[in-house]
Parts: sequence; C-alpha cells; structure tokens
Amino acid sequence: MLFQTEVTLPPFSRGYHLITRHIEKHLSALPQNGLLHIFLKHTSAGLMLNENADPTVRYDFETMMNRVAPESHQYEHNLEGADDMPAHFKSSLTGASLLIPISGGRLNMGTWQGIYLCEFRNRSGSRQLVLTVWS
Amino acid sequence: MLFQTEVTLPPFSRGYHLITRHIEKHLSALPQNGLLHIFLKHTSAGLMLNENADPTVRYDFETMMNRVAPESHQYEHNLEGADDMPAHFKSSLTGASLLIPISGGRLNMGTWQGIYLCEFRNRSGSRQLVLTVWS
Amino acid sequence: MLFQTEVTLPPFSRGYHLITRHIEKHLSALPQNGLLHIFLKHTSAGLMLNENADPTVRYDFETMMNRVAPESHQYEHNLEGADDMPAHFKSSLTGASLLIPISGGRLNMGTWQGIYLCEFRNRSGSRQLVLTVWS
Repeated sequence: MLFQTEVTLPPFSRGYHLITRHIEKHLSALPQNGLLHIFLKHTSAGLMLNENADPTVRYDFETMMNRVAPESHQYEHNLEGADDMPAHFKSSLTGASLLIPISGGRLNMGTWQGIYLCEFRNRSGSRQLVLTVWS
Repeated sequence: MLFQTEVTLPPFSRGYHLITRHIEKHLSALPQNGLLHIFLKHTSAGLMLNENADPTVRYDFETMMNRVAPESHQYEHNLEGADDMPAHFKSSLTGASLLIPISGGRLNMGTWQGIYLCEFRNRSGSRQLVLTVWS
Repeated sequence: MLFQTEVTLPPFSRGYHLITRHIEKHLSALPQNGLLHIFLKHTSAGLMLNENADPTVRYDFETMMNRVAPESHQYEHNLEGADDMPAHFKSSLTGASLLIPISGGRLNMGTWQGIYLCEFRNRSGSRQLVLTVWS
C-alpha cells in the first residue's frame, strides 16, 4: 500500500456530479503503476464511472433511475421521506466503490470516463470517501 | 498480500442477510491499513453494502428487485424454475464482490453500512466466499 | 503489483460475450495467490460475472436489460441513436471493472462463473481493457 486518506466532499444537490478533479486533487503523488480504490461510506449515494462530456447524460440518469426505483412505490422504510428507500436501492445498483488502474503515473481511464458521485437524497450533508493507492 | 481464505456460509433463505459479523469472525488479524476483498463464487446470489439497521429495508429490497426482474417474465432459461433467471439478472445488478478499506485495524465502513449476502434463489445450499486481505 | 497490461478485444456484436479464455490468454504467469483486476475503458459497455454454460442466459440478459432501459424512452442524450443513452445506463448497472481472486495459480471463480463483455451498442469498435495482477 502506498497511502490511504479520507476525503470529505462538499454537499451536493440530488443528481449526478463529476468528481474526477476533486479526487485527483488528493492524489498528488501517484505511483508509476498501481491502483486507486475509492470507497463511499454511505448507503444513500453511489459512485460510478460514466460519460463525462454531455450534461444531458446526467439528466437522463436522474430520469432513468427514478423509473427503476419510483418514489410512488409503497415502501415500508419511509421514515425519512419518499426519497429514502429509493436512494438505498439506487446505491445497490451503482455500488459504493470504484477500482481504477494507475499507469504511467496517471489514472488510466478511457477518454470519456469520469468519476461520478451520485447523490440520491433530496437533502444530504457532505459525503465521506476513503481513497487508497497501491503500487 | 496478507492472507487469503475460503469461507462457507450457512444456507440462507431467499432474501437479504447481514453477514458483517460472519465475515469479521474470519478476519482475526487485520492489518493497520489495507483492503479486504470479498468474492462470492456464485451467479444466482449477490453481495452488497447497504443500510444495516432497519429490517424493513430488506423487505423493500425483495419487493424492488422482484419489480426489476419479475418471475412472470417469459424467460428462455427456466429449467430450474421461475426464480432461476431472475436470480442471475439480480446478481448482475448487485455484483459478486466487494472491496472494503481497512483503517486502524478495522473495516472502515460508514456507520450505516453492512455487508449483505443477497440470496436470490428460493432454495439454495451454502454459498462460498473467498476473502483476501492486503496490507 | 506483479504486472499490468492493456488488451484490445476484437469488436463484438451487441450482446453478452464470454471472454474468460480471452483474458486468460494474456495471463500466462499467474502468481500462486493474488488478485486480478479487469478494467474496461468505456462507458457504453460493461463487465460482469455470470452463468457461463447456457446460451439462453445471454438471450434473457438482452431482453431484461432492454426492459430496464428501453430504447423507446425519450432521452435527452440521443445524438448517436436510440441505443446510446440506454448503453450508458446499462453500463452503470453492470459496472466497468471486476476483481477476481487468484488461488493456487488460477482464477478462483465458481464452476458456473464466466467473465462477460457486455456490448450495449448496436455497432461498436474494439474495446480496451487494462489487466492488473497483484500477488
């Protein structure tokens, strides 16, 4: 292991937010070759890699995820509001961690790949990440 | 690599089962900092991290997953019953492995995160995991 | 880290393709124990582990994924055709990377687990993978 650090993200509004640069800011000393693990310590938000260029992709993601986990469904777990249980379910679909190769001292993602924080709650505080780098 | 071991879970009924303590039982010697990989050797069950407190979350997960992959759909792959192909599909949604940071000698998950074995079959035997710890 | 290499897959038709042997061909020198990371550098295709024997499973996956992300939906992101945005969404469901334990010098998957390249576009070129092996 090279290093491990915890990062507090700024609070985000509900939706899909590119955080690639925010992550890279905390990775000043990347090894030549290795691996970056990003872990989200929450169950009502998610992490994913997806298209980083066209903002309409993020709009469509919101629509599509709501179609898969509608707030109109009768949930048993609803104390925190209609967006609560759908948020847990969406988090199980995207997952809460990413593993990205490091090659030539940089994150070796495809041209169109960006790192997304998916905020599934209407109102949430800041989210915590654990970053771990191996070489 | 620090160590790698195979674990046989007890048979679970169809549904969502917290196995955090079961996993930790097999991890007596965690390093100060590192990573735990949990790998499920099956295609009709899944692993996920999700809300560990309220049992109604597990009830809602069953309902929601059945909504996404209904048994009433006309599947080509149906020799083992109506729950067979939905189980494979659900497994592709949750995934079959988890990677969790270790910090200060403990699994560094959020307060509300628990490790779930998702049993998607009506009747299944015990499931096999491979645990790998890096430091 | 033991080694890291980039692999170009042959172009695949839309659908679910077993690539286990293709991957293993690039892994001549596996360690006794360790981990294989497979990373897909694209946002309109996916990787998953699933049932490797019955071809009807792949047929049902196509039907089920199209049910979850139908092309008939009104997407904002549609410049590249009706299969474009559904491909991004499906990619978020399967994910773009896999982490597989290596035990006894072999990939330690279950009997029925195969590695799938999920090609979500109607027409796509070859796809790039980054393979990383730890021991």
